[in-house]
Amino acid sequence: MPVTPEPNSQSSIIECVSKIAQRYADGDATCPVNPFRTPSELKSQLDLAINETGSSTEHVMEVLEQLVLATPRSTSKRFYNQLFGGRDPVATAADMLAPVVNTSLYTFKAAGPMAIVEEMVLERMAQKLGFKAPGPQGVFTPGGSISNLLAMLIARNRSCPDLRNKGFGGQRIICYVSQVAHYSIVKNAGILGIGRENVRLVPADSEGKLQADALGRLIEEDRDAGHIPSIIVATAGTTVLGSFDPIAQCAQIAKDFNIWYHVDASFGGSAAMSSTHRHLLDGIEQADSVAWNPHKVMGVPLSAAAFITREPDYLRRSLDETADYLFQGDDDAYNPGTRSIQCGRRNDALKVWAAWKHHGDDGYECRIDHLMSLAKHCADRVKDSKSFKLTSEPEFVNVCFEVIGKSSRDICDTLREHNELLVGHAVVDGQRIIRVPFVNGDLTISDVDEMLDLVIKIADSLPSGENAEPAHINQSNGSCCCP
Amino acid sequence: MPVTPEPNSQSSIIECVSKIAQRYADGDATCPVNPFRTPSELKSQLDLAINETGSSTEHVMEVLEQLVLATPRSTSKRFYNQLFGGRDPVATAADMLAPVVNTSLYTFKAAGPMAIVEEMVLERMAQKLGFKAPGPQGVFTPGGSISNLLAMLIARNRSCPDLRNKGFGGQRIICYVSQVAHYSIVKNAGILGIGRENVRLVPADSEGKLQADALGRLIEEDRDAGHIPSIIVATAGTTVLGSFDPIAQCAQIAKDFNIWYHVDASFGGSAAMSSTHRHLLDGIEQADSVAWNPHKVMGVPLSAAAFITREPDYLRRSLDETADYLFQGDDDAYNPGTRSIQCGRRNDALKVWAAWKHHGDDGYECRIDHLMSLAKHCADRVKDSKSFKLTSEPEFVNVCFEVIGKSSRDICDTLREHNELLVGHAVVDGQRIIRVPFVNGDLTISDVDEMLDLVIKIADSLPSGENAEPAHINQSNGSCCCP
Repeated sequence: MPVTPEPNSQSSIIECVSKIAQRYADGDATCPVNPFRTPSELKSQLDLAINETGSSTEHVMEVLEQLVLATPRSTSKRFYNQLFGGRDPVATAADMLAPVVNTSLYTFKAAGPMAIVEEMVLERMAQKLGFKAPGPQGVFTPGGSISNLLAMLIARNRSCPDLRNKGFGGQRIICYVSQVAHYSIVKNAGILGIGRENVRLVPADSEGKLQADALGRLIEEDRDAGHIPSIIVATAGTTVLGSFDPIAQCAQIAKDFNIWYHVDASFGGSAAMSSTHRHLLDGIEQADSVAWNPHKVMGVPLSAAAFITREPDYLRRSLDETADYLFQGDDDAYNPGTRSIQCGRRNDALKVWAAWKHHGDDGYECRIDHLMSLAKHCADRVKDSKSFKLTSEPEFVNVCFEVIGKSSRDICDTLREHNELLVGHAVVDGQRIIRVPFVNGDLTISDVDEMLDLVIKIADSLPSGENAEPAHINQSNGSCCCP
Repeated sequence: MPVTPEPNSQSSIIECVSKIAQRYADGDATCPVNPFRTPSELKSQLDLAINETGSSTEHVMEVLEQLVLATPRSTSKRFYNQLFGGRDPVATAADMLAPVVNTSLYTFKAAGPMAIVEEMVLERMAQKLGFKAPGPQGVFTPGGSISNLLAMLIARNRSCPDLRNKGFGGQRIICYVSQVAHYSIVKNAGILGIGRENVRLVPADSEGKLQADALGRLIEEDRDAGHIPSIIVATAGTTVLGSFDPIAQCAQIAKDFNIWYHVDASFGGSAAMSSTHRHLLDGIEQADSVAWNPHKVMGVPLSAAAFITREPDYLRRSLDETADYLFQGDDDAYNPGTRSIQCGRRNDALKVWAAWKHHGDDGYECRIDHLMSLAKHCADRVKDSKSFKLTSEPEFVNVCFEVIGKSSRDICDTLREHNELLVGHAVVDGQRIIRVPFVNGDLTISDVDEMLDLVIKIADSLPSGENAEPAHINQSNGSCCCP
């Protein structure tokens, strides 16, 4: 017997979820911080148990609403905890359609125009990066970590063309990345069989930028030792400071040594949208591949992560398999399953397409310029205040600071427990700082002021505290705590 | 200047997308096959271009509706092209909420109760598989391919504990899988540095089942040659035939040789829901890890793919990195980022939770039994008809057959071009067959009859044709075309 609900219930369920969604969205303003509760409180307060016997649709929708109202609210103006936040209504609407249509992006036969939508978004991103047609191509991935993995995979296989089929022999393949790069580089080296210890963590300067001269020296040493330098990963927008590595200089070094050049612009790629701030990415057009997540500064819902390459043949040659039952006819350009790490794949491009179609390039240029001006305003206010210490000059949309004489960790924890603000801390140069990323395009100058006032109010309520961290905690200039 | 739409527009956009979703869902019955169009027709008919200047919300929503109406409809009763299909209204509703709430499942700080929801779903799945508490754990992944990759990664690192940090030395690591297993196993061996050629494709019998005696012999040979047998992957539900490998026998062999045992139950895992059909999975409770995709037979929208293991420490030791800026307090059990291949991660568990809460175990038992009865009815009708040839007895919900004297490929292509039915073909034993999976719980006996009548009607309109395939095309008993 089919477990079909009564006819027309589909419509009424969509109606019901639409009401929940509207109430939730209204709450972004009226209740910007959902109340903090511990795991055990949540477990006892919410009817989460799955049972032998089912529950009515009404009951499930009721618990669903309680559940979302107990979830940390990432969409309001009080959320500064991650490199995403806020809500783009058009992107959200498009992503609400994705499960209704339920496309899998492996073949044109199954995905139809959605495969074209993905291609058009990737093409536009490639153009913004300065990649010239024809040639650049890409694929949406499940996140920036996987985009970085694809780059490292391609580079590894390019260095050792037999490796994909034969496996590693005795080769020692080396990857180069700044010591403050995202942790996925070291993690991926462990996954790909390269070995975490074969990632050279190149020193960064006091602004969190990879030191290009040190990079060149390390590659020479490895080459002379008979190892195989395989990839340079530059970061455009580090996780904590929002720093940009010297992208053009790294490009030249990669060219000199004939190794793959990847820019992890998961966070900073959106600077390409602004003619004022595009210079941060100068040289990115020379990269062999780029990771860029529209779910961060472009504000579309998770997950929207693009991997874009000027050398799509390498991508395909690292991932394609013949699957006769799956790839049935049509132009392979629209069978993205041949260049994806997944088989079945969710339609993450649609929401990016919808938002970009709505805002246009111009809208995104305004957004980036606006977010940069918020960061500047915040940094200025921090500098002007006797209570704060700006720990580094912001290069992008992150502002990092301390409240003098107070513990950054205690401030963040108390803000969370008092349901005032969600914001994170990190270690820079041995000091634990508060990191505030401006990624929500709806924020205004007065929201920034309000946020700083809240931080001061909570800090005032706390006893004196220290921010010096023991030496084993992430003493590098930034985000990552890889060894 | 922020690119915020006017106040309250959020509500009106949600209202608007809810109307589009309702109309689309109604179309499942009134227009079960969206019209077939070529890529160039689609490009010229739809206003997909992203421009410098934006478009109004109204225009974008209009194009969005045109776009989804031009997308192959996976949710109707005429879609048999993949191992997913149909619509679960409650699961769809829950997934529509995911972008509204926009949780990232890496930490309890960011995800709150959603981290608990994921854990509860995984626990219930582990129970259904017969894994005993305490201990089993898992993580939702971006798809079955990645779940399989995690298993192979863990096995590789378990075989060579230094490998994650040091990289490969000269070790030759071997994986064992049936010749008709999913192509991701060979693909993943290429990604992980094991080498595609180090996957042993164990012969399958005429029913598409791995031959256990051959498996044992191959492992012995490799061990005697000084290689490192690392993992056995048994398949529960192959892609074309829906066959189940001898799961308990493989478990014993893995135990004898002390190697990791993974069951790829991406497709067939749902048999665990039915006391009548649970026997297909006998022995799975002895697996070290299992891949099981609720987005297939459980009918929730893409993507919902679980990786479950009885040895969660191995999972964590293959993927965890320290990221001080990210993992800030709370019990690590609710910080799933330490056991995930991604960093930011979409909330895929919520829709599974909602659907399971609604249907209960009992509802899913009915669903599986119903789908199995449809497959049996279809196979019986095929056997009874002079026009058809049943090419193999169905073990699960797939039915494979030919129309005698007609080309399976031409039939499927014509059904697609005439907007009658989306269904796929595959090669089994050198013959191209039509593969019909019953995964949509709303289907009834009369839908099955209608589908077969449509196939016959189209076949009658076609000239005689052949199904013999040249030897280089996938001569194995099933789905995969790995070398």
